[in-house]
Amino acid sequence: MSEKKLQLPARLKAMEPFRVMTVMRRATELEASGRKIVHMEVGEPDFSTAGPIIEAGVKALDNGLTQYTAAEGIPELREAISTHYQKRFGVQVDSDRIFITPGASGGLVLCTNLLVNAGEGVLLCDPAYPCYRNFIHMVGAEPQLVPVDIETNFQPSVAALDKHLKSNTTGLWLASPGNPTGATMPRDELVEILQWAEEKKLQVLVDEIYHGLHYTDDLPSALEIDTDTFIVNSFSKYFGMTGWRLGWIVVPPQYQEIVSILAQNLYISASSISQHAALAAFSEEASPILEHRRESFRARRDFLSSALRDLGFKVSDDIQGAFYIYAGIEQFSDDSEKFCTDILENYGVAITPGTDFGVAGSNLNVRFAFTTDMDNLKLGVDRMAMALGKL
Amino acid sequence: MSEKKLQLPARLKAMEPFRVMTVMRRATELEASGRKIVHMEVGEPDFSTAGPIIEAGVKALDNGLTQYTAAEGIPELREAISTHYQKRFGVQVDSDRIFITPGASGGLVLCTNLLVNAGEGVLLCDPAYPCYRNFIHMVGAEPQLVPVDIETNFQPSVAALDKHLKSNTTGLWLASPGNPTGATMPRDELVEILQWAEEKKLQVLVDEIYHGLHYTDDLPSALEIDTDTFIVNSFSKYFGMTGWRLGWIVVPPQYQEIVSILAQNLYISASSISQHAALAAFSEEASPILEHRRESFRARRDFLSSALRDLGFKVSDDIQGAFYIYAGIEQFSDDSEKFCTDILENYGVAITPGTDFGVAGSNLNVRFAFTTDMDNLKLGVDRMAMALGKL
Repeated sequence: MSEKKLQLPARLKAMEPFRVMTVMRRATELEASGRKIVHMEVGEPDFSTAGPIIEAGVKALDNGLTQYTAAEGIPELREAISTHYQKRFGVQVDSDRIFITPGASGGLVLCTNLLVNAGEGVLLCDPAYPCYRNFIHMVGAEPQLVPVDIETNFQPSVAALDKHLKSNTTGLWLASPGNPTGATMPRDELVEILQWAEEKKLQVLVDEIYHGLHYTDDLPSALEIDTDTFIVNSFSKYFGMTGWRLGWIVVPPQYQEIVSILAQNLYISASSISQHAALAAFSEEASPILEHRRESFRARRDFLSSALRDLGFKVSDDIQGAFYIYAGIEQFSDDSEKFCTDILENYGVAITPGTDFGVAGSNLNVRFAFTTDMDNLKLGVDRMAMALGKL
Repeated sequence: MSEKKLQLPARLKAMEPFRVMTVMRRATELEASGRKIVHMEVGEPDFSTAGPIIEAGVKALDNGLTQYTAAEGIPELREAISTHYQKRFGVQVDSDRIFITPGASGGLVLCTNLLVNAGEGVLLCDPAYPCYRNFIHMVGAEPQLVPVDIETNFQPSVAALDKHLKSNTTGLWLASPGNPTGATMPRDELVEILQWAEEKKLQVLVDEIYHGLHYTDDLPSALEIDTDTFIVNSFSKYFGMTGWRLGWIVVPPQYQEIVSILAQNLYISASSISQHAALAAFSEEASPILEHRRESFRARRDFLSSALRDLGFKVSDDIQGAFYIYAGIEQFSDDSEKFCTDILENYGVAITPGTDFGVAGSNLNVRFAFTTDMDNLKLGVDRMAMALGKL
């Protein structure tokens, strides 16, 4: 039969491919041709999953734990996460409100389908993780971008949110720490914003997937402040379990039933093997390994942010989480995609153009991920110095 | 802050919980109170994953293959599936058209978001897998149910489809073998329906997740007939990998780019561990184990369909796939939920009411899953005989 012509609806046309994928593909090609590439584009820890978690995964396989689990997740893991909230944040979160998801992605897709209807608007920071606006487009709703910049440490003020609120706005999505900026939201600002959102009757979702990978002493979970907030979290980043595809969400009590139904439909359950392995993520054996890795990330942040600043990049002095630096390139270029291509092709350093993350100033910024070891970071900085004539 | 009242949009209110979950929960309660329950409600093979696949999973963990993969899946697995189509069906399917998904669920969610727009209609068999209509509701579209029954072996005719076609119909979703009926679609009927769908410009999706678990010599894949059809498949059923959450879809060539974008957004990648393990699913070591299991299912089908018919259930004599019998209970009841509750509470046999799967005749049918061993099936039949006064 004849091949049909591709016709996509507007909601899908608005979903752009990630430019970081193009960077990664080209970097791989260059490597295949024999070049040494410094990878600072990848949003994934360069550490393999910690030994105790791997061992727990092997044990789950040896025990034949290869069946579906309850859609909500195995009770032991939901309990472990509840205990984690108690220990780390001193907050009581009933395990019935915690749902294990196939990655934070699975949780975000569920929350989008639950909370966002066609024609509605959701307030998002610009720049932000690109999937947010893509998911909102996907359901035929409107991402309402609130520009944030280095002056406010890439987090929104109530005044800025209020300015972008529209009559169709029903939601507000925040991230702390955020991608691509590593910016965290101070407790008092979070309280103020959640109060404002309640007044405006907005459904709030807070992405806390980089929690744990933070370098400040006080990083609150929104759960400490408001039980009516939706939380998305993940085993990918701090717990180093990207390829296992495991995350969780915390939902307000009145949503438990509909979230179960959506989970049963959308993914049946998260991987049984990953869930049993993740139990070890909270163990005494894993903790020091994960904390040691956090310290490595902190040292890399210290080195890279200082080195980039010395080279003339505009770099926040308040990057308190994740493994990203969102660096201003005003001194060098007003075309972040061209800048990234040049640096990759001519100097073998892979970084991500700001255009992946939004509109506001996106051509004047690039994202560095410090997901490679200190030797590579030093090599990358040296090559950048050469590229910028600062050697 | 105060708890907000739950208000759900119509598209979510239409998503009902699976009744089989209520049955399973109650069965577990009864077991906890010391009763022996015969489980014929579970849509999951009772075999653990085959040894060679488990071993490949352990090896992947030992090798630290715990990172994200490409959103499309690892190339070796896409190639292995392409080879599988060549060997089993003699059809050339370019591996670029094959996308590895987190379960068939992940593939169905992707296809729904890709193909179905709010306000459109999709033709579905009634009865069918309940997620189909739930996904269509979720995106604000209309499931257009085409009643099928034992007279046409639970598959639709062109005449029946044509009768239910509406001006807003844009899609047709089929399943062969189907859940809850185990009904397969003969090659000539499939050809006829795909031709009709092309004339009507409908996007066709065929669920082939029970392929491999079939008991007929000629079970065609729709890929043999039409490259413009979307195929959903899974490692869960024939390959016995439910808890690993792994499936695949095959898409027409012109959709490859947008499917990559959707995959990157919706789930980043399927589990790396599951993908590496699944390579062993096609191995010479796994094949005889899987084929032996298929023969066990065939023997169970032979026994159970004959035994249920003897008890007075209305049972198709043409169940050629999956591990289900959709049995008519006209002789005993016109309320399948009450029938199932009675049988579970009083006789300890867990089965699923027809109301999980649709509307047409759903109160006059129940689903038996032969996902338990022959001894249990015999026990279940004996208890049913007692329940029905046929001992």
